[in-house]
Formats: sequence, C-alpha cells, structure tokens
Amino acid sequence: MRGSWFNLNRRTVQRFKQLAITPAGSLRINLLLLCCVGFTLVLLASLASSSIGWSYDRASDDRFSDSRKGYAILINTWKRNDLLKQSIAHYSKCQGLDSIHIVWSEPDPPSDSLKKYMNHVITSNSIGGRTIELKFDINKEDSLNNRFKPIPDLRSDAVFSIDDDVIFRCSSVEFAFHVWRSAPDAMVGYVPRIHSLDQKSGSRDHYMYGGWWSVWWTGTYSMVLSKAAFFHKKYLSMYTNEMPASIREYVTRNRNCEDIAMSFLVANATDAPPIWIKGKISEIGSTGISSLGGHSEKRTRCVNRFVAEYGKMPLVSTTMKAVDSRYTWFW
Amino acid sequence: MRGSWFNLNRRTVQRFKQLAITPAGSLRINLLLLCCVGFTLVLLASLASSSIGWSYDRASDDRFSDSRKGYAILINTWKRNDLLKQSIAHYSKCQGLDSIHIVWSEPDPPSDSLKKYMNHVITSNSIGGRTIELKFDINKEDSLNNRFKPIPDLRSDAVFSIDDDVIFRCSSVEFAFHVWRSAPDAMVGYVPRIHSLDQKSGSRDHYMYGGWWSVWWTGTYSMVLSKAAFFHKKYLSMYTNEMPASIREYVTRNRNCEDIAMSFLVANATDAPPIWIKGKISEIGSTGISSLGGHSEKRTRCVNRFVAEYGKMPLVSTTMKAVDSRYTWFW
Repeated sequence: MRGSWFNLNRRTVQRFKQLAITPAGSLRINLLLLCCVGFTLVLLASLASSSIGWSYDRASDDRFSDSRKGYAILINTWKRNDLLKQSIAHYSKCQGLDSIHIVWSEPDPPSDSLKKYMNHVITSNSIGGRTIELKFDINKEDSLNNRFKPIPDLRSDAVFSIDDDVIFRCSSVEFAFHVWRSAPDAMVGYVPRIHSLDQKSGSRDHYMYGGWWSVWWTGTYSMVLSKAAFFHKKYLSMYTNEMPASIREYVTRNRNCEDIAMSFLVANATDAPPIWIKGKISEIGSTGISSLGGHSEKRTRCVNRFVAEYGKMPLVSTTMKAVDSRYTWFW
Repeated sequence: MRGSWFNLNRRTVQRFKQLAITPAGSLRINLLLLCCVGFTLVLLASLASSSIGWSYDRASDDRFSDSRKGYAILINTWKRNDLLKQSIAHYSKCQGLDSIHIVWSEPDPPSDSLKKYMNHVITSNSIGGRTIELKFDINKEDSLNNRFKPIPDLRSDAVFSIDDDVIFRCSSVEFAFHVWRSAPDAMVGYVPRIHSLDQKSGSRDHYMYGGWWSVWWTGTYSMVLSKAAFFHKKYLSMYTNEMPASIREYVTRNRNCEDIAMSFLVANATDAPPIWIKGKISEIGSTGISSLGGHSEKRTRCVNRFVAEYGKMPLVSTTMKAVDSRYTWFW
C-alpha cells in the first residue's frame, strides 16, 4: 500500500511537471492560481463585511440625537401606483428609515386601496420598536416645485429625495446616510452630473450641461440629482421661501430642472461641491424624461438661466467619489 | 505587386488561424487583446485627467470666500531640521497653501540658518500674487498638546495638520482639501484607525485600539490621525480651552495620544465619523513611535481613559473611503 501510495504521488508530480513545461499546461496552472487568489479575496471580503457589519450597524442605531438617528424618504410620483408600491415596499424595509412623504400632485387624491396597501406595508415593517410615519403631501397645483416643499414637524434632519422608479439596496442607502452624517450641509447622491464652459460659443460665460458620459470621461462632477440624494431638510424651506421666485416659475413653466435648481441652491449656500456615492441603481420604470429628445439642450438652457439669476456660477466641481471600503481590496 | 500583396495577406491570415487553434497561440492572442485594452484604458485615463485638471483647478482658485480659498499647514517637529526642510520645501509648492505654522518645542530656538533657508524656500514659491506666511510657534514647555494650540489671526478655516516625516503629493493634498470643503466639520485624513469592543475582557465597556491591519481587514475606521489630516481651525481652541484639562494632562504625562484626543473631540462635537482619503504616503524619516514596542497597548489605554473622561464612546465607525474618480475606471 505504502509503495503504491508513493508511486501514485511520484506519478502525480511527474504529470504536473510535464503539464507545467507545455504552454497550454502553464496556462491551465496560471488559471488555477488565479482562481485560488480570487477565491481567497472573495472569502476575505465576505468575512470582513460580515465581521464589521456588526460594529458598523451598531454605530448607526443608538447614541445619536433623535434628529440624526434616521432619515425621511421624500418620494415624487405621478400616476405610477405600481412603481410607487414597489418602492415603498422596498424602502420601508431599510433600517434607518424614519418616515415616508409621498409628493402627490395628481388631480385625483390617492385611492383608498393604495392607502390601505401602503399602511399594511409600513405596519408590517414597523418592527423592533420603531414606527415608520407615512404621509401623502397632496398638492392642488401640478408643479415640480412640489417635491421640495418644506415638511412640517419632520423628526429627522436628513431627507432622502427619490424618484418612484429607482431602487437602491438598503445597505447602499444606509451607507449614503452615514456619509451624509459626516457632511450634513452637502448633497450626497448617486447620480452625478457636470457643468462645463462651452468652448465653442463666443460668450465666455456660456455653460453646458454634461450627462453621465461626460462624468465618466472626465471623472468630474458638480451636481448630484435629487432623483436619488440625501440633503438637510433646511434646503426644502430655502428652496420654497428664499430661492428667487423666478427660478421656481421657470421650473413650473418648463416642467424640468427642479433638481438643477436644488443643486445651485446648495452650492450657493455652501461654496462646496456635492458628494457622489458609488451605488448600483436599479430603474424599475421607464428611463424617464432624460431619455426624451432634446433633453441635454433643455438642461443646458436651465443651467445658463440659473447662472443669470444668481449672477455667477455657484456650482463647484470635484472628482471625489465615496466608496464602501468593505468592498475595495486594492488600497 | 498586387498578387504578392494578396498572397502575403492570405499567408498572414492562415498563420493567424493556425496560431489561434493551438492553446499556446490562443494564450498569446489573449495577452495581445489584454495589452490593447490596457493601453486604451491608460490612454483614456491620461486624456481624462489632463482634460479635467483644467476645470477642477479653476474651481479651487477664485470665487471662494478668503477663509475657504486656501489652507494652513500646521507641522509638528522635534530636532529633525533636515526632515523639516524637506517637508517645507515640498509643501510650499502646493497651490492652495496659504500659511505654514511650525510647532517648535525644543529648548533652543530655531537657528538663523534654518530661518534663512525657510524664508528662501517660501519666497521662491510665493509666485502668482500669493504670499505664503511662515511662523514658528515657539513653546517653552515640551508637550504634545502644543501642536493643537490656537493660531491667532489665522486667515484660512482649514488646517492641514502634518508630521515632519510624511510627504503627500500636492495633487493629493489639494484633493483632500476639496473633500474637506464639502465636510468642513469633519476630520479629513489619510491615516485611518479603528476602535472596537474588547470581546475577551470581562467588562462590556472595554475598547481596543486597532492599527492599519485592523482597518484593512474590516474596511472600517473611526479615527484619522492628525499626523496627516485636515480639520477646521475651531477645533484648535476647543482642544486647548474646552476639552477636559485632565485629557491634556494625560497626553503631556504619557507623551502620546494627542491625535486620539483630537479624534474624540471632533467625534463628540459632530456625532459623525471622520473621512478617510485614499492617498499615497511617503515616510521620509523613521517610522516614529508607532514602531516602538507596546505601542498598541499604550493606545488602547488612551482610548479607554478618554472614554472614561467623556462618560461614553464618542467615536463613530464608518466604511467610507474618498477616492479620486479621475483614477478609478471601474464604476
């Protein structure tokens, strides 16, 4: 037995040597080594994330002042009850969620069946002593400014402004909320956009609005869109009561650019750029107005109109991206 | 000619086909493709960074209030004039630098030759209308608290606290300064550390200090060390005038932990975690006291002592890392 075991091993070693000296063999061995390294990294990553999920989540629970413990979701919707239901059902599971405010600008009020469904979802997720507050903000006028109306008696300082057709994992939302805590005056969001001086135009002060590919290409951004961003509740009253009325009128008339207006407002108040969070976005509805023709021209017109209103360009560019270091292994 | 050209190409195609069907050949082809992809990415990266260096730097120059335009370097040194000279010569080249404050706690005052060298370096880098201010803060008593004494008449809000033996590229310092602008109440630094509950100890409130490898393993941190960090100048007066005197006495007596004390102070004031900047650190001197024996035990003692002083653990853990998106290509 012992001899055969020894021969077996000697044969294995010889086969391995033969394998190693042929290019194809060395390729297989390289792949094998790569798999081992990959597996080890994945193992480390899972261990690390599980081990610190503990201390990380603990930190978010207790010891904070009530206004910093959780966040309010401010969700804008328009005749897409199925998407709204999906969103609320998802976000009401998220740990830090304190209240949900649905901006409702349709002519008909929300149906009883919708309210019933919402309350059922909220109640079933209001566990562990927390109670999630649900409110419909009913608006007579249909204006995009409705989404930034101040919310009376809001318990939390943090507002997570979100469209009804985008979903982020709860872990990703909690991460963005933690980043916002370190920068409570900044807009902290997932969808970066950029402005740049229009080199072609004769005027030295003509700007262009740049979409995702401009951000990807340059690595720079100066706005995060309110379709998925955290900001301090104080900006809601500033938008409604302190921002030039002409900007709100422009937004209502053109049914566009309320998010750019909010970016201008925050940049003007802080003299600082927003913070872009790396996060996987899942669009559950149509791609929205950004997919319609002439979108970027409309956005460029907004940017230049708002620059004229402020008498300067308040946006500040940055290249900072906030990533979750639990999932980045190359320092 | 045309025929031979045609034959040449046919031969090339045939050779390529033969090459492709052998494993070794396909390996070469894969490597070739990999090189092409790699080269393209590098090309894109260089193009992008060069193209947005422009808009990014412009944003940092004008349009800010004077107190937010630049930053002060607060450098702590002890009988290492050669390192001090290297540091000042390097940082005085950095664009946003407004003033340099050297914390001097040696028995003998700085020599005339040192002063002469410093002034020469500063003057030669004070170009483009900016004047870098240089001050030695002479201290009779040798205490680590000296590094956090308030600086009278400081023009800038941002203080870049740095040891004399660490060097960061100017681009990296500017990046950290831009991040600080978005989070002016947070500590923004390059050297993260972590605290964790000591599972082994009987006491439920006994904490452990974790060094770099704990941060690497868990992806979590709750402090950034003041050996390389931006913070608001207001924390200097809070450290000297408002923080419990017993903590300053502990720091003086043990010649250690002034950086942990500052982390506790900022966390207690903000209820928020610091921000870790990804940056390449170059140590130009010895590795300092952290390389001496019993270092982590001493640091653990400091953490638990300060927790007792505050009557709670003010540090907040986070997993956020701020990276420069100009140099990250995988979104």
